[in-house]
Amino acid sequence: MNEMRFFSPDPAVRKISTELYNLVKDYPILSPHGHVEAQIFAENKPFPDPAQLIIVPDHYVFRMLYSQGIDMLEMGVPTIDGVSTEKDSRKIWQKFADHFYLFAGTPTGLWLDHEFREVFGIEEKLTGSNAMNVYDAIQVCLEQPAYLPRTLFEQFKIEVLSTTNGASDPLSDHQIIKQSGWTGRVIPCFRPDDVTNLNIKNWLAHISRLSEITSTNVHNYKTFIQALEKQRAHFKSLGATSTDHGVNNAYTKELSVEQADQIFQRALQGKGEQGDAERFTAHMLMEMARMSIEDGLVMQLHPGSFRNHNQMVFERFGADKGADMPVRMEFTRNLHALLNKFGNHPAFTLIVFTLDESTYSRELAPLAGHYPAMRIGPSWWFFDSIQGMIYHRQKILETANVYNTVGFIDDTRAYPSIPARHDLSRRVDCDYLANLVARHIIDMEDAERMARALAYDLSKKTYKL
Amino acid sequence: MNEMRFFSPDPAVRKISTELYNLVKDYPILSPHGHVEAQIFAENKPFPDPAQLIIVPDHYVFRMLYSQGIDMLEMGVPTIDGVSTEKDSRKIWQKFADHFYLFAGTPTGLWLDHEFREVFGIEEKLTGSNAMNVYDAIQVCLEQPAYLPRTLFEQFKIEVLSTTNGASDPLSDHQIIKQSGWTGRVIPCFRPDDVTNLNIKNWLAHISRLSEITSTNVHNYKTFIQALEKQRAHFKSLGATSTDHGVNNAYTKELSVEQADQIFQRALQGKGEQGDAERFTAHMLMEMARMSIEDGLVMQLHPGSFRNHNQMVFERFGADKGADMPVRMEFTRNLHALLNKFGNHPAFTLIVFTLDESTYSRELAPLAGHYPAMRIGPSWWFFDSIQGMIYHRQKILETANVYNTVGFIDDTRAYPSIPARHDLSRRVDCDYLANLVARHIIDMEDAERMARALAYDLSKKTYKL
Amino acid sequence: MNEMRFFSPDPAVRKISTELYNLVKDYPILSPHGHVEAQIFAENKPFPDPAQLIIVPDHYVFRMLYSQGIDMLEMGVPTIDGVSTEKDSRKIWQKFADHFYLFAGTPTGLWLDHEFREVFGIEEKLTGSNAMNVYDAIQVCLEQPAYLPRTLFEQFKIEVLSTTNGASDPLSDHQIIKQSGWTGRVIPCFRPDDVTNLNIKNWLAHISRLSEITSTNVHNYKTFIQALEKQRAHFKSLGATSTDHGVNNAYTKELSVEQADQIFQRALQGKGEQGDAERFTAHMLMEMARMSIEDGLVMQLHPGSFRNHNQMVFERFGADKGADMPVRMEFTRNLHALLNKFGNHPAFTLIVFTLDESTYSRELAPLAGHYPAMRIGPSWWFFDSIQGMIYHRQKILETANVYNTVGFIDDTRAYPSIPARHDLSRRVDCDYLANLVARHIIDMEDAERMARALAYDLSKKTYKL
Repeated sequence: MNEMRFFSPDPAVRKISTELYNLVKDYPILSPHGHVEAQIFAENKPFPDPAQLIIVPDHYVFRMLYSQGIDMLEMGVPTIDGVSTEKDSRKIWQKFADHFYLFAGTPTGLWLDHEFREVFGIEEKLTGSNAMNVYDAIQVCLEQPAYLPRTLFEQFKIEVLSTTNGASDPLSDHQIIKQSGWTGRVIPCFRPDDVTNLNIKNWLAHISRLSEITSTNVHNYKTFIQALEKQRAHFKSLGATSTDHGVNNAYTKELSVEQADQIFQRALQGKGEQGDAERFTAHMLMEMARMSIEDGLVMQLHPGSFRNHNQMVFERFGADKGADMPVRMEFTRNLHALLNKFGNHPAFTLIVFTLDESTYSRELAPLAGHYPAMRIGPSWWFFDSIQGMIYHRQKILETANVYNTVGFIDDTRAYPSIPARHDLSRRVDCDYLANLVARHIIDMEDAERMARALAYDLSKKTYKL
Repeated sequence: MNEMRFFSPDPAVRKISTELYNLVKDYPILSPHGHVEAQIFAENKPFPDPAQLIIVPDHYVFRMLYSQGIDMLEMGVPTIDGVSTEKDSRKIWQKFADHFYLFAGTPTGLWLDHEFREVFGIEEKLTGSNAMNVYDAIQVCLEQPAYLPRTLFEQFKIEVLSTTNGASDPLSDHQIIKQSGWTGRVIPCFRPDDVTNLNIKNWLAHISRLSEITSTNVHNYKTFIQALEKQRAHFKSLGATSTDHGVNNAYTKELSVEQADQIFQRALQGKGEQGDAERFTAHMLMEMARMSIEDGLVMQLHPGSFRNHNQMVFERFGADKGADMPVRMEFTRNLHALLNKFGNHPAFTLIVFTLDESTYSRELAPLAGHYPAMRIGPSWWFFDSIQGMIYHRQKILETANVYNTVGFIDDTRAYPSIPARHDLSRRVDCDYLANLVARHIIDMEDAERMARALAYDLSKKTYKL
Repeated sequence: MNEMRFFSPDPAVRKISTELYNLVKDYPILSPHGHVEAQIFAENKPFPDPAQLIIVPDHYVFRMLYSQGIDMLEMGVPTIDGVSTEKDSRKIWQKFADHFYLFAGTPTGLWLDHEFREVFGIEEKLTGSNAMNVYDAIQVCLEQPAYLPRTLFEQFKIEVLSTTNGASDPLSDHQIIKQSGWTGRVIPCFRPDDVTNLNIKNWLAHISRLSEITSTNVHNYKTFIQALEKQRAHFKSLGATSTDHGVNNAYTKELSVEQADQIFQRALQGKGEQGDAERFTAHMLMEMARMSIEDGLVMQLHPGSFRNHNQMVFERFGADKGADMPVRMEFTRNLHALLNKFGNHPAFTLIVFTLDESTYSRELAPLAGHYPAMRIGPSWWFFDSIQGMIYHRQKILETANVYNTVGFIDDTRAYPSIPARHDLSRRVDCDYLANLVARHIIDMEDAERMARALAYDLSKKTYKL
């Protein structure tokens, strides 16, 4: 792990990169959007073992292995169809180590390198030969109190960590954490896709759960809205500052209350018509924006993933198994209704993410460079990478500047990778800015302001942390 | 303002960049497509004050401020709905200076830095603290004869400046300039969107004006064409060498005279049908190409902007207020009809611009690298920027070479920024070529030819200047 | 021809680039997909003259000249409409040399520079003045036995060269080569577009030829499939390891045998309906994947070219004359059916190419980074260029790594340019990797493995050579 890693080779640039990086490297971590479970902090139990911590739950890891012909059953991924999967964590780890070269140059590889070194103190590069030694070394760590989830939270200097929770989540773990007296700030984020997307599997069951949790008989559109408002308030009471919406596309369009109710009734009766789900989602985004202005929760949009593309994998292993695939996006026309109604409102914040890099310069930067309510999320998912970040800056900064973005935030299930992700982004951003300084495009004063903004200030402010 | 600005940090590259830049930096400026008004040269009066010159008319400036929550009323943008707007230019300037950091690294910021320094002799970086000093210094300049529009024209070494004018524009200011004896070459460009786009607001009024100005009773398609031909001749008599077409998309398709007439008649009677406007525009592009071959005017296509995306801004402030947003474009299929009919004709020149960078390598470069009539316009609008230019070269040069582009031309309303824009592009292009030389991809002889082509030769030749 | 050509200017990077390049520069050439004719090896006759070898058959060359107004008739391109074309090879060569500056910085220019120098020993840069000297020098070479096709094959160190052949090709030249005792490995690739695309000109004639060559009366869908299977076996017996499919788009969808037969019957009777061709192609891709699993031929997909865009050129000169234009592509939805049915199968390999660079990071890398059957082809056609390769790596490596690509393969009709193409790609790839090493993103061990993979190992393995 070279101290100059990820910086430009040019010595003049590297000097500036280092100077900027030194300014921001020790900032606390803000993680206002992620998928670590609150349960691990509620329970604060030791992590089971290296394979169960690092490989089995991380679809970034096993999708790459699968792409090269290594069965997910060999990697211990749990099945839902009853087929037996590998239980021996050492076998899983050995297989992983044998193929660790596949991750060279990938974000996962870089995060793991950092994690092995900085979190677990492993000095050697992981290979098939040293696999068991590395396993043992990590195992020893995991059994120590210093590696309990809450202790790591403090060691990682996490200031805020947000989980992501369905509309009908009771947030019991967040309540346990709150009551425990532990001061780590773990907050929820309200993500109601399971009830706003009429096409979701078991939609009716989700509605029932929502009824139950809110003590509201959700039997029409009006009561549905009441239940959602109630849950948003509940989330807010446990620290939530934002909502999130994982939609197929960014289409927004308001329906009349009557139209919305008709669609909702049809869905309740299992008589949905062609186009109902798309129109309902488009309307609910409008409604969520309306609620955001009222309750102050920041609204996030994560559109454009074709979920569970591989039917066989979905049937055997379930959702979130590395088979979600991006599709082309459109924002200028699709966000027209929402931005026209709410985009000029000073109390509204809409953070837009994309998996379609061609929209950065064509649509997102021009829109965010005009509408006061809109901000651009960081390079997301596959694009949470060195090249992904550089491209994001190249395509957005000149039109929208960094100040219409939210800086870096991670989006991960892999808890011990969080410091690695923030360190990488701070390095890449500082080097990007250093190149601008070296080319006399910005001066050092502006570079420093931007470096701080990207590392901390922007997410602090935009997410109201 | 460092002499090495915008060049690569590598000393070996920088040496070549400097050598190439020294070859082209003093070339006269060709500006065959812009939005400066001829009126300022006809009247040749002093510019009112710094805010009215630099901020109020420039939507690049106030859109960025608006995106960060600064009301356009505070920036003095004139309203059309009667709401009162800031009149105190010093207050406007102070607000602008307070937020000048928002422009760091943006093209607007770089142009303004150059303009402050080179045009107005300001040595300091603009801040909230020195705002009034800078204001005063510029004000002193503006009151001197050296800062009259015509004097600046010569000081800027502008060889040709083209304005952009609607189909029914009488071009009185151009006539005044011509008759004044002043030798500055200010020419019009024929942009008939107001009459070829049937959906435009007050289309009938534009047709009436066209009738009047051409002394032609435009009552059917035939007389419409006659009037257009007459106006093209009028434009040509005042120096025009080109036309321009700001269309929603690049769709081209010929109609029969009967079909065109039916659509035109329906429009005259206010009985337009679904699809009429799109089909008529597609046909008129064919017709404009036909006329171009006959009268020799070069045809420009500027497609793909969703105009007036923000309804509130449009209603309060009118058009061209920073709320025009790019949409995805398609050229291969859409230009098929036009290129098949006219693209092989030696007397035809079609210059295509885009706001969708994904079309550069996929569509524009292959098309321009084959059809003799087609040329690619420079990176336009949001993409008239350092990264925008580099990307344009990266995506186009290998397939179409620089010789199928038109080199750099600006596209601005901000008169005193013109030298800054050309200087920036010359620097960026020379540095791009220097990198190719340093990597032994081209030799110095080719680099010099290309540098001259991009800075001057290509626009001179393509626009028939 | 500088030894450091195409490497980064930074001395530290250049040192690593050189080290990596030295590892791979002498590897044999694998060319498993190209358009050189087997006939030249069957006959092994001297090439006629420089113009007939280098200009007349290469649409990369004459399309660029045509784009700048030089008629293809002047370049000696053969016509099919009876109009006479230039026959004097010296005149053609002179014209070409006069405009050779148009190729500066283009891949064609770089390949030609390499070819002139390394294959023909020309030291000077080609210009209008030395045109005839260069012509003479090449002519002298061509008359020597060292320049016979088979001798060059060995001198070029080609390990395998694949031609591309229609479904009904008897492969007589491949048989002649086999029987000749010459050990050069020239193999065919099965490309059945002429019979799977119902819209192709003279489709019925192609079906007749297929009937004849397979001694199968192709009168319905069943016999069509039988004939194809028979021809695949024939291709395989002459060394084929792959098939190729040049489709309009990547749409895949299975039909029932009855549906497929109905469409096929309509086509036989000349009564095709709207949508028949698209549905039949989508189905045949499924069928081809099925056959691939059975016979082991690797399946290649080359979608997204709008063929013969210029009707005038098509009518006068025929197909493949530089007027094929890319269109936007979609893979996530279009490949869903095919990847779901076959993408998890260990015996299946699908190599996907694209002319739409916006799909690299959004669709191809995520898909290939999951499905074990899928690999990404190299940057193709217009993108077989320095910038094209760099962009390909930037957009794909982080998500799919090099190991889900097939490394470099050329795709050319220009036989003597083959070594130039492989040398260029090896240089660009090594420099790309060197930059990663210099930035401490990968270490030297990984860089070496990747360099070998991209230059040789991946195509060897993926194409089963």
